[in-house]
Amino acid sequence: MGKRRTLKLGAVLHGVGGSASGWRHPDMPADASVNIGFYKQQALKAEEGKFDFIFIADGLYITEKSIPHFLNRFEPVTILSALGAVTSHIGLVGTLSTSYSEPFTVARQFASIDHISGGRAGWNVVTSPLEGSALNFGGKPHPSHPERYRIAEEYLEVTKGLWDSWEDDAFVRDKETGVFFDPAKMHRLNHKGEYFSVQGPLNIARSKQGQPVIFQAGSSDSGRNLAAKTADAVFTGPESIEEAKEFYRDVKQRIIRNGRNPEHTLIFPGIGPIIGRTEAEAEEKYRQIASLVTIEQALDYLGRFFEHHDFSQYELDAPFPDLGDFGSNSFRSTTDRIKRRAKEQQLTLREVALQAATPRTAFIGTPERVAGLVQQWFEEEAADGFIVGASDPNGLNDFVDLVVPILQERGLFRTEYEADTLRGNLGIPVPENRYTAARKAADSIVNS
Amino acid sequence: MGKRRTLKLGAVLHGVGGSASGWRHPDMPADASVNIGFYKQQALKAEEGKFDFIFIADGLYITEKSIPHFLNRFEPVTILSALGAVTSHIGLVGTLSTSYSEPFTVARQFASIDHISGGRAGWNVVTSPLEGSALNFGGKPHPSHPERYRIAEEYLEVTKGLWDSWEDDAFVRDKETGVFFDPAKMHRLNHKGEYFSVQGPLNIARSKQGQPVIFQAGSSDSGRNLAAKTADAVFTGPESIEEAKEFYRDVKQRIIRNGRNPEHTLIFPGIGPIIGRTEAEAEEKYRQIASLVTIEQALDYLGRFFEHHDFSQYELDAPFPDLGDFGSNSFRSTTDRIKRRAKEQQLTLREVALQAATPRTAFIGTPERVAGLVQQWFEEEAADGFIVGASDPNGLNDFVDLVVPILQERGLFRTEYEADTLRGNLGIPVPENRYTAARKAADSIVNS
Repeated sequence: MGKRRTLKLGAVLHGVGGSASGWRHPDMPADASVNIGFYKQQALKAEEGKFDFIFIADGLYITEKSIPHFLNRFEPVTILSALGAVTSHIGLVGTLSTSYSEPFTVARQFASIDHISGGRAGWNVVTSPLEGSALNFGGKPHPSHPERYRIAEEYLEVTKGLWDSWEDDAFVRDKETGVFFDPAKMHRLNHKGEYFSVQGPLNIARSKQGQPVIFQAGSSDSGRNLAAKTADAVFTGPESIEEAKEFYRDVKQRIIRNGRNPEHTLIFPGIGPIIGRTEAEAEEKYRQIASLVTIEQALDYLGRFFEHHDFSQYELDAPFPDLGDFGSNSFRSTTDRIKRRAKEQQLTLREVALQAATPRTAFIGTPERVAGLVQQWFEEEAADGFIVGASDPNGLNDFVDLVVPILQERGLFRTEYEADTLRGNLGIPVPENRYTAARKAADSIVNS
Repeated sequence: MGKRRTLKLGAVLHGVGGSASGWRHPDMPADASVNIGFYKQQALKAEEGKFDFIFIADGLYITEKSIPHFLNRFEPVTILSALGAVTSHIGLVGTLSTSYSEPFTVARQFASIDHISGGRAGWNVVTSPLEGSALNFGGKPHPSHPERYRIAEEYLEVTKGLWDSWEDDAFVRDKETGVFFDPAKMHRLNHKGEYFSVQGPLNIARSKQGQPVIFQAGSSDSGRNLAAKTADAVFTGPESIEEAKEFYRDVKQRIIRNGRNPEHTLIFPGIGPIIGRTEAEAEEKYRQIASLVTIEQALDYLGRFFEHHDFSQYELDAPFPDLGDFGSNSFRSTTDRIKRRAKEQQLTLREVALQAATPRTAFIGTPERVAGLVQQWFEEEAADGFIVGASDPNGLNDFVDLVVPILQERGLFRTEYEADTLRGNLGIPVPENRYTAARKAADSIVNS
């Protein structure tokens, strides 16, 4: 690799949290998922910690069995825009599905967030894992896993094309001559593909980042390929440093095979650190979190990954049931791992469910221990950075107050923002407008 | 009517403005339409003036001939969310088309803005007048004017249904017992109609307003009927007090025929005041604005209402050409009026175009004169309030600084916000959740 790598950090803002029972924690505002004060506080805390970005996850289908945060939460485009207005440097990354939206609208909304925030928008491209999502969007069958990724690939072509509708210097705005824009620098995409037909141009200028930063979060084979072709950043959920290294190597190799620069696609494992002043305090915090979950909630939580499968029908203390290929159309990489691990470690259903509901993170312990793990993963190329999704309500505050200073002292992490755009802080270049590039290429042929 | 009517005010935030040449005004930031600082300043100015709401218009199709503001502007959902985070009392109303969006997503985004802002969201329901919009959304033919309104009506049924997914007290959040919500108060819509199939529930709680405020802006017969059936507020563009009174009477009567309370649907003519310390100063401001437009721009601007018709093919100083039924699928009420007036007043094409590009507002003159007109229109029931869309860059500032104090002195307009929600300030009740209402009705039968 070229210049020295520097660590990047994101923070998942996830309301009452990603578990069934985190909302019961004494320190958690029970309405956190729709509490604008809580979101502002967390975003400003992450910005105080010089994080690169905040990250908003999403989903499009709920049932009575969904976890609390999923039942009632802010919609990503709206909460990112709101947080963009009250922050100044931190990136604003949100999830939006390519299976149930229109590329013209989504390209426009993320471009608009980029303009509102002065170049801090990022889009986490997902394909909607949950089968039931289709029921809220017209009722046609949910596309299969491979088809969803074909749709996503074409969708990204369209949005990236729309983001190039206007060259960077298209808007002349000369009051004297009355020339507002140069029509030669406005371009229609005229896309007609398998899934989408979009003429363009987009009705918003190219933004400061050229294009919002593209995140990709699928870890399946199709997800890795889509990331290798199109993503600037990858959000992944490895269970160990070995798994993380394998993923890191694999995705970076796929990027190289696609003719792209592997330094310009960053890999972010998600971590849920639990930090105590002593190891014992950290363990006590973990026990407190785990104690909030009932076995019924744990079974429901597990069921969510398997298309809301009802696990209460099985014997709790018998080996984890053989589900065959079931569950492969949704969170494929997660369900594969759960099945594999249950088999390898001969776990019972109860054990699998409780572990799923309250995973015992590797990143648990004193600030020094957590900082050490961050450093190790980063230096051993298991990660370019981390997305911190706190397992307890004070997790982000603890990480910013206790772990970040250690990372800064060790010269691993910034003490001031390098830039005021997300691309600038991530060290990812602004993509050149395709039409500007073509004109330059044509000019250089003429002049050679 | 019952209790004393009080005047309501909204402000259109419209970047460089709704004309072809307003951006050339010396006081206008030429990038105003994508300038977050400008939007924040205008929103805060309107809030300083105790306005009920800001209003963001929208469109989904541009060509080289579109006016500057349309070529490059913020997307409504994103800019409203951002402004919601930096204001505290003013309502946030934005345009979104029912012809090219998904009701689940739109219901969710406006509910989310309502949560973010503590109950200040409003949605201006439009059906996308421009034929070309279809080209950016799949390329199927643009629905006809009547069909767009049938779609809109079903669309509103769905979104209002989704907003009732959760009863107001559905989220119990009892940390002690572990009960997060009451499943009996979560409801699936299970809508299957002519155009939409949506199961629900929505993945966000009922917001403080129960439902965001519904604005409707079409003045055609279909538009008036949709407003009468579903709207809380109507945005209209009359050219005279007589036209405004006719519209007011007609829409209020339609509301009564629909069994609704006419006091709960407010009618807002749009006005573009030009204010000077003297009449002469106001006239000079108008002349300055009109002088910025070329005849070519005026023809382009006119063409926009007629599906981008090329008016440069006609003789400029001959009578306005006979266009037959042409232009009736887009801005029908506007094109009808332009044709009628051209005939009645025997106008040339040049006159029609220049008037269209820089309409000479009735609301021109000293602050006293403008306040007097506001009072007259309001008291004579031509309006419940006004949406102020300034014709010059200082128009909103002038209105707030010079006209609002006169309206306040005369007891016509508030000096402090009555409420912190848009419904509260507009004096429109929070609609009761349909399932709560049904339960109450059932209980009263049991108990009678």
